[in-house]
Amino acid sequence: MSKYLSRRFDDMRAYTPGEQPQDRSYIKLNTNESPFPPAPGVLDALSRDEAGRLNLYPDPDTRVASAALAASFGLTPERMILGNGSDEILAFCFLAFCDPETPAVFADITYGFYEVFARVFCVPSRVVPLDDQLRIDPKRFCPAGGTLFLANPNAPTGQALELGAIEDILRENPRHVVVIDEAYAAFGAQSVIPLIARYENLVVVQTMSKSRNLAGARIGYAVGNPALISDLNQMKFSFNPYNVNRLSLLAAAAAVRDTGYYETCVGAIKATRAATAGELARRGFTVLPSAANFLFARPNFMGGEAYYLALKERGVLVRHFRRARIDAYVRITIGTEDQMRALLIATDAIMRESA
Amino acid sequence: MSKYLSRRFDDMRAYTPGEQPQDRSYIKLNTNESPFPPAPGVLDALSRDEAGRLNLYPDPDTRVASAALAASFGLTPERMILGNGSDEILAFCFLAFCDPETPAVFADITYGFYEVFARVFCVPSRVVPLDDQLRIDPKRFCPAGGTLFLANPNAPTGQALELGAIEDILRENPRHVVVIDEAYAAFGAQSVIPLIARYENLVVVQTMSKSRNLAGARIGYAVGNPALISDLNQMKFSFNPYNVNRLSLLAAAAAVRDTGYYETCVGAIKATRAATAGELARRGFTVLPSAANFLFARPNFMGGEAYYLALKERGVLVRHFRRARIDAYVRITIGTEDQMRALLIATDAIMRESA
Repeated sequence: MSKYLSRRFDDMRAYTPGEQPQDRSYIKLNTNESPFPPAPGVLDALSRDEAGRLNLYPDPDTRVASAALAASFGLTPERMILGNGSDEILAFCFLAFCDPETPAVFADITYGFYEVFARVFCVPSRVVPLDDQLRIDPKRFCPAGGTLFLANPNAPTGQALELGAIEDILRENPRHVVVIDEAYAAFGAQSVIPLIARYENLVVVQTMSKSRNLAGARIGYAVGNPALISDLNQMKFSFNPYNVNRLSLLAAAAAVRDTGYYETCVGAIKATRAATAGELARRGFTVLPSAANFLFARPNFMGGEAYYLALKERGVLVRHFRRARIDAYVRITIGTEDQMRALLIATDAIMRESA
Repeated sequence: MSKYLSRRFDDMRAYTPGEQPQDRSYIKLNTNESPFPPAPGVLDALSRDEAGRLNLYPDPDTRVASAALAASFGLTPERMILGNGSDEILAFCFLAFCDPETPAVFADITYGFYEVFARVFCVPSRVVPLDDQLRIDPKRFCPAGGTLFLANPNAPTGQALELGAIEDILRENPRHVVVIDEAYAAFGAQSVIPLIARYENLVVVQTMSKSRNLAGARIGYAVGNPALISDLNQMKFSFNPYNVNRLSLLAAAAAVRDTGYYETCVGAIKATRAATAGELARRGFTVLPSAANFLFARPNFMGGEAYYLALKERGVLVRHFRRARIDAYVRITIGTEDQMRALLIATDAIMRESA
């Protein structure tokens, strides 16, 4: 920290992304990436000819990609905004819809970035505990008393709310924006995008990082009524008008067109998730029901951190959060069948040694 | 605007990027892009194999690209941070180094985004007029009384300060950060990067958009002492840790390695700029001395806006700013020789008609 940093950041802690150690090669099950490459159409779209046009700015209005995405939801493009990953879109939501009089409201156990956004934009936050089974209790958000950020399915627990429960929340919070963060919804939660016509306070955030196999291209987006999207565009054009680069715009449009490949990849993850959940349960793990591309699981033979470290020593990376209530768990990204087999083999070895 | 937008944005105006009309094809001399494609090494780096790895997140620490860039300046990587274009880096500077007690200070005629950043981050600003020749008067910034944002060469005037003048400013502002925005410096201004070891208050911002022909890839960066860079990293990791996508990181590393191509492109722009400035002067334009990849020129046969509109009608786009003091000027990006010939032919036609 320099002496020039604004005092308001004196006690700030930034977000810590999943580790990317360089000391050896790991089986990476710690950042919820897809184990599958992007759709073939994406690779075709990122041609040498297109790379040769990188001297030109991208379209700041992202017209082609927005139209393709909007059409996939049966929407018009003015209900849609693209971002440099969904983190940027979430940042715009905090900036636009929270202020000293309008706190950000979120669960105690959820995507760790929400509290960081509140901090960096100097808005108060109200933290609402999950219930004893680490589930979101909708009643606790009726009303929320501020701009609500709900991950559905929630992270890192993987548990999803029903559409009806979210609709109750929307109905009980007419004076505040409700942001539903659907980063993982494609893997098993019901999307609330069909509700945007009915609730003018609803913003739905999704990403191409996981279900569209494009974490490296940084493409997120929000869907909502045109007035809310216009607010988010105000933020974008006051922050970084050319926020999505040319090649990512092409990748986004191509990825959304290939629904067959998308369904195959998502289907494979869901099948592997079910098989892995069964194998872990058979080994005595508590495994929360997951609607995401990861499992949140608690070993019964050692602590969460010890298990994470033992796996890392064996070349398998998962994510452990040193945090009250979830300290005994690890979050395991669903990879390929081979990767999950390696996880189970390593787990068996750890269990034998610790027995 | 929705009723949910925070009241603090009631009177906000976002930045307006150069127009991108879709009604016909134009000779685009309005957004300061390079007319040349990226270096051949960039095209090679953006291979199908790399596109096939877009399912994986980029390195949030941008190690390979930062090392390549830092080495090109003879620096270590902890003196460098990469952004999603230099606009993102500038946003981080406003967020980190300005607050209600520390205004943002900038010229009345300069990059239009500075006032937008001040507005969106709710920090006060102090606007310092250019002199009568539309030049920055260093004495007016000694002291600046806040965090100083100086474009060198300045935009849209194209005029540059000497190194000694900037050093005076750095010396007279020890209590405040001085951000030198060198977006256009490669085309004729002296970079102050060699001064970063001597002035702990200096942040230098550059971009690959113009001189490296990569506007579409969105790569900007800042150079400064490690403490200041650490502050900017705090902002990045509190906003968007994966801010630069995988392919842009590869493009950045490849572009910086090809110094020969870079020098050829920059040399061509400078030669074409000199020739175009001469041709415009011969036609009675007032042309400010330019150290950038554009000319700021005032026709003597009609107003700036009328000239811009007449050119647009003839398929040539330049940029006009409807703003006090510079209303009579247009900003003309230096393109290829052919593009500049088209500008001059269109200008001759306009002059004949208006005579």
